[in-house]
Amino acid sequence: MSHTVDPVELTARLIRCPSVTPDEGGALALMEDLLSAGGFACTRVDRGGVANLYARWGNEGPVFGFNGHTDVVPVGDPADWTHGPFDADIEDGVLFGRGATDMKSAVAAFAAAAIGFVQERAPDGSIVLALTGDEEGPSLDGTRALLDWMGEKGERLDVCLVGEPTCPDRMGEMIKIGRRGSMNVRLTATGQQGHSAYPKRARNPVPALARLVDRLATATIDTGTAHFDPSTLAVTTFDTGNTATNVIPATCHAGLNIRFNDLHSGDTLTEWLRKEAEAVTDETGIDIALDVRVSGEAFLTPPGRLSNLVARAVEAELGVTPELSTTGGTSDARFIKEHCPVVEFGLVGRTMHAVDERVEIDQIRQLTAVYHRILRDYFA
Amino acid sequence: MSHTVDPVELTARLIRCPSVTPDEGGALALMEDLLSAGGFACTRVDRGGVANLYARWGNEGPVFGFNGHTDVVPVGDPADWTHGPFDADIEDGVLFGRGATDMKSAVAAFAAAAIGFVQERAPDGSIVLALTGDEEGPSLDGTRALLDWMGEKGERLDVCLVGEPTCPDRMGEMIKIGRRGSMNVRLTATGQQGHSAYPKRARNPVPALARLVDRLATATIDTGTAHFDPSTLAVTTFDTGNTATNVIPATCHAGLNIRFNDLHSGDTLTEWLRKEAEAVTDETGIDIALDVRVSGEAFLTPPGRLSNLVARAVEAELGVTPELSTTGGTSDARFIKEHCPVVEFGLVGRTMHAVDERVEIDQIRQLTAVYHRILRDYFA
Repeated sequence: MSHTVDPVELTARLIRCPSVTPDEGGALALMEDLLSAGGFACTRVDRGGVANLYARWGNEGPVFGFNGHTDVVPVGDPADWTHGPFDADIEDGVLFGRGATDMKSAVAAFAAAAIGFVQERAPDGSIVLALTGDEEGPSLDGTRALLDWMGEKGERLDVCLVGEPTCPDRMGEMIKIGRRGSMNVRLTATGQQGHSAYPKRARNPVPALARLVDRLATATIDTGTAHFDPSTLAVTTFDTGNTATNVIPATCHAGLNIRFNDLHSGDTLTEWLRKEAEAVTDETGIDIALDVRVSGEAFLTPPGRLSNLVARAVEAELGVTPELSTTGGTSDARFIKEHCPVVEFGLVGRTMHAVDERVEIDQIRQLTAVYHRILRDYFA
Repeated sequence: MSHTVDPVELTARLIRCPSVTPDEGGALALMEDLLSAGGFACTRVDRGGVANLYARWGNEGPVFGFNGHTDVVPVGDPADWTHGPFDADIEDGVLFGRGATDMKSAVAAFAAAAIGFVQERAPDGSIVLALTGDEEGPSLDGTRALLDWMGEKGERLDVCLVGEPTCPDRMGEMIKIGRRGSMNVRLTATGQQGHSAYPKRARNPVPALARLVDRLATATIDTGTAHFDPSTLAVTTFDTGNTATNVIPATCHAGLNIRFNDLHSGDTLTEWLRKEAEAVTDETGIDIALDVRVSGEAFLTPPGRLSNLVARAVEAELGVTPELSTTGGTSDARFIKEHCPVVEFGLVGRTMHAVDERVEIDQIRQLTAVYHRILRDYFA
């Protein structure tokens, strides 16, 4: 059986599937057909209205995993686009459409590389594509569902490559070996309402919360680690909504966004915040409650075998030495890091989530070549 | 000419005038007719859509002044009242209606007392009623207009009694010899917007304003004076309105209400606030602007001849020794204190501004008797 996949054509076909989160849009069905034809055993791992696909070639270890998503963010007003966001028009070597960089192209590139690779030479091990239809949304039933299912079935990856766009400007310049964690905290201070003319008869929550906010904003959380910048805390809002100048309000709220490195977890930071809030409560008598949402823990795959593998493939195919970075927001790598070493490498992300999202078709071919070389070197 | 005025009947007639600020409602016209008939020279001193009445008996000094207002606050939903708010129903010796305590009754009581007094014995001096139709509103063209007009005409008072309700619970228990000043301040902190993930690239105004608010709220402005409680500062609100957790906002606002004693003025406190704000700007680089509205300066008429006169009349008529107090909100006394010594004495204020505002008709007669005795003793 011979089966060649053109990654540019496959990207175009995927773009034509309107798979705005959480709609499957035909994208994973297309991948399932294609990978099945290429010799991969496919299983749909749908959960909570989200479609996910687990595709495996081979039965033995070691297992090389690839993680990516076929869902895309909304297009906004299609009239703002110079090309239909689901038309996959190609003009002057540039392919336009939602998902062109984030990240239907990488899914197509890895699928083409993997299908090609197993046909050239049946590797001594397995290749897995763990593809999700919800990376851009709540991410509760996407890659997490795949990992849960893998746990139940005894499926394991030895390493994993995530295909998110990682290069700020130039193809090949950056590999992500980690990401900061991120958490949002809503602080609610509760006192007792009263008349402005008699502050002693009321218990005003505003100055108490102000004190906490000042302390948290000026605290040094850490001074950075070998691979991470210092953790940061931003006070994003402080609201009371009291329009009466003669009334002391009963409650007020503040919002924090914390980006944290590998010295911390959501739990340790929550404990720190709780202690700081309690100290202010002890001083002021104002109760301060915390509502914490950890959107991602920090992860780090220290430079080593996996990052070297990817970096050498980039150098060989593109002539660029990639930086090993931990900058940027979160990705599904935050879930995978609990399972196995994970790094991320993909396209230039400049137009992702923007109007006229687009990719140079040469870069899709370059990415396919890098992925192909990674597989070859991994199974060498 | 004989002319007797029943203060209860006059109060009822005034209540039937729907003089919700700034509507004159017929109330000052009624007073003008009545006082003219009683021998007072009346001049309407209207300004800016507000009706005011200056009524004087006599041409010589000393001049005893009375200040009051015939305007009332809105009634809310008339269906909530057990008696029509402009009906002046009397039930079981209680007169119901908007203005029953604040303060058509006091205007009626003083007019009745003054008209009666000048008929009994032409005093060796003058009596002035300076009545306004805007004490409950912006107060820009009310008593201030009367004082401006008096300045132009060379009219002067030697002392002034304001008829606002002054007694918390029991008739006669309190004379106001001063009031704290009041000012509202809106603080606006301006920094530079940015991404929550990179706080160093933005300049966040929230923690800076929080620091200022904490400092101001915990500052000891003073420890009180002989006749005043310590000045107070209440933070009434703190608002940003930023709903995006990944954005550091560019601006935020806070509101302060300051009640201050006779150690301060609006200007000296503004200067203090400015210095505190500048200190935070020096520390944080965040600009903080002040928008200051002084709604009233502090005033004090130290205990002495005028307060003794009123206190002795209260004791003689009611058998109660009144407290000399500076508590409570602002009144038009804040304008008159620039002109002459001023004190305030009136009814029990419990139902003022409330649904079913009402007054015991006996108390209107008691107040008339007190006012009459004050005039008799003043001109003795």
